[in-house]
Amino acid sequence: MRFTSERLLDGAFLEREFVLGEIPGILWTPGSASAPVFAPLPLPLILLSPPPLGLRQMYPRLVARARQAAADGFATATIELPGSGQRPRLPGTEQAVTDLRRALAAGEAVGDEIIDALVLPLVDRAVPEWQEALDALLCLPETGGPVGYSGGVISIGVRLAVVEPRIAAAVLFAGSYVPRAMFEEARRVTIPLHVLLQWDDEGNDRQAALNLFDAFGSKEKTLHANTGGHTGVPQFAGEAAARFFTRHLR
Amino acid sequence: MRFTSERLLDGAFLEREFVLGEIPGILWTPGSASAPVFAPLPLPLILLSPPPLGLRQMYPRLVARARQAAADGFATATIELPGSGQRPRLPGTEQAVTDLRRALAAGEAVGDEIIDALVLPLVDRAVPEWQEALDALLCLPETGGPVGYSGGVISIGVRLAVVEPRIAAAVLFAGSYVPRAMFEEARRVTIPLHVLLQWDDEGNDRQAALNLFDAFGSKEKTLHANTGGHTGVPQFAGEAAARFFTRHLR
Repeated sequence: MRFTSERLLDGAFLEREFVLGEIPGILWTPGSASAPVFAPLPLPLILLSPPPLGLRQMYPRLVARARQAAADGFATATIELPGSGQRPRLPGTEQAVTDLRRALAAGEAVGDEIIDALVLPLVDRAVPEWQEALDALLCLPETGGPVGYSGGVISIGVRLAVVEPRIAAAVLFAGSYVPRAMFEEARRVTIPLHVLLQWDDEGNDRQAALNLFDAFGSKEKTLHANTGGHTGVPQFAGEAAARFFTRHLR
Repeated sequence: MRFTSERLLDGAFLEREFVLGEIPGILWTPGSASAPVFAPLPLPLILLSPPPLGLRQMYPRLVARARQAAADGFATATIELPGSGQRPRLPGTEQAVTDLRRALAAGEAVGDEIIDALVLPLVDRAVPEWQEALDALLCLPETGGPVGYSGGVISIGVRLAVVEPRIAAAVLFAGSYVPRAMFEEARRVTIPLHVLLQWDDEGNDRQAALNLFDAFGSKEKTLHANTGGHTGVPQFAGEAAARFFTRHLR
C-alpha cells in the first residue's frame, strides 16, 4: 500500500489516495496535525464499498459518507472494484452486460444465467481484494478493529460477511441483482446487519431483496425500507445507518 | 373528560387517569409543579393506542413509551379500546374469536370473513372514540398540535390517518390481521408513516403486512423490520420510532 496524495477536507478530516498493487483507493481519517483526533487511536474502520460505477463518479457520495463517519470518530476506506473506473474490464462480464441490456430493452425478465454471469465473477474477484485492502489498512497506526462494511453491490457484502471474520457489522444496500447462489451464502451470515431497501427502485427486484433479508442467518438484522428510487435514500435513513455503526463498532 | 387520579412518576412526569364518558384513559405529561416542563406549552401530543388486551395488562409497556416521550417533550395519552378491559364486549366479535381459535387450532388459514368480523367492528367503534378523546385532550392547556398516533391495532391507525386531519404522523405496528377493505383505505393515507414489522411474528401474516406497506399513499413511509417475535421489538427500534416523532412533531 502506497499513499499517492494527501489533503485536508473542511479543516477536519484527512483524505489520502493510495494504490494497493494496481488497485486505487482512498482512506479518510478524522483529524490532522493541526486538528487532532479526539477519538482514541486506533480508530474503528468502515469499508465503503462503491457500486460498480467507478470511484471518480461515486466520489461525491462516498466523501459525504466519509465526512459523517469522521464526525462519528470512524476511519473509512474505499477501493476501486475490479472492472470499474480505469481498471481492466472483467472477462465475460461484457457479454453479460450486453445480454442484460437486450433483456431490459425487450421488456423481458432478467434470467438467472445473466445475473450469475454479471455478478459472480465480480464477487469472486472483489472479495479477496477487499481482504487484501483490509490487511494493509489494519497495519496503519490510525486504524484498528472493529471493522464495518457498508456498500454497494450486496452480493460482495454477503460473501465478505461470510468469509471475513474481521467484519463485525454491515450495512447492505439491497439494490442490485442477486445470483441464486447468494441466498445459500446469506444463511451463513451471522453478524448484525442493517439492510437498506428503496421501495420504488424500478431496476431492483423487491421480492428478491425481501427473500435475501429473510435468508440472512443473523440474530440481529434490520430492514429499513423507504419510499423513493434507487438513488433516493432519504437523509434520515443514512443517519440511521450511521447510528447502527456507532452502536456496533464503538 | 374527568380526571380521577394523579401521581408523579420518577419525579419527572405526571400520570393522570381520566374517564371520558364510560371510557377510561390515561394522560402523561412531562414536568410537574416541583419539576417544571422545559418544553414550551402546549406540548405536542402522541396518542398511544394499545393492543386489545386491556390497559391494565398493557400498562408497563405503555408507561415505558410515555416515559420516553415525556423525556422528548411530548404529552401522551391512551384510552381503553371498546371490548377491552372492563368495557362491555363488542357484539359479534365473540363469535369471530371462537371461529379464529377454531381455525388456528385446526391449522387452517384464517379466512377473510373471520378477519372482517374480528377487526372491522372494532375499527368502526374505536376510531370515533379516539376522535372524541382528541377533542377533549386538545382542550387542555398542556396539550396542543401537532398530534401523532402510535399503536396498536394497525387497522385503527389506518382509518384514523384517513379520517382525522389533526393526526400529522403515525407509527404503526404491523402485527395484527388486516381486513381486505383496509388495503383500499391505506391508499388514501398521505401522512408520514413509520411502520414496525417483527419479521418472525408467527401469528402475523408477513406478506399482508408488506402489501399494506406497499398500499399506503404516503410520500414518506418507512418500514423497519426486525428479527424477533410479536413482543420482541428491539430497544433501538423503539428509539428510531421516537426519533420519527421528534422529526415530525417538533
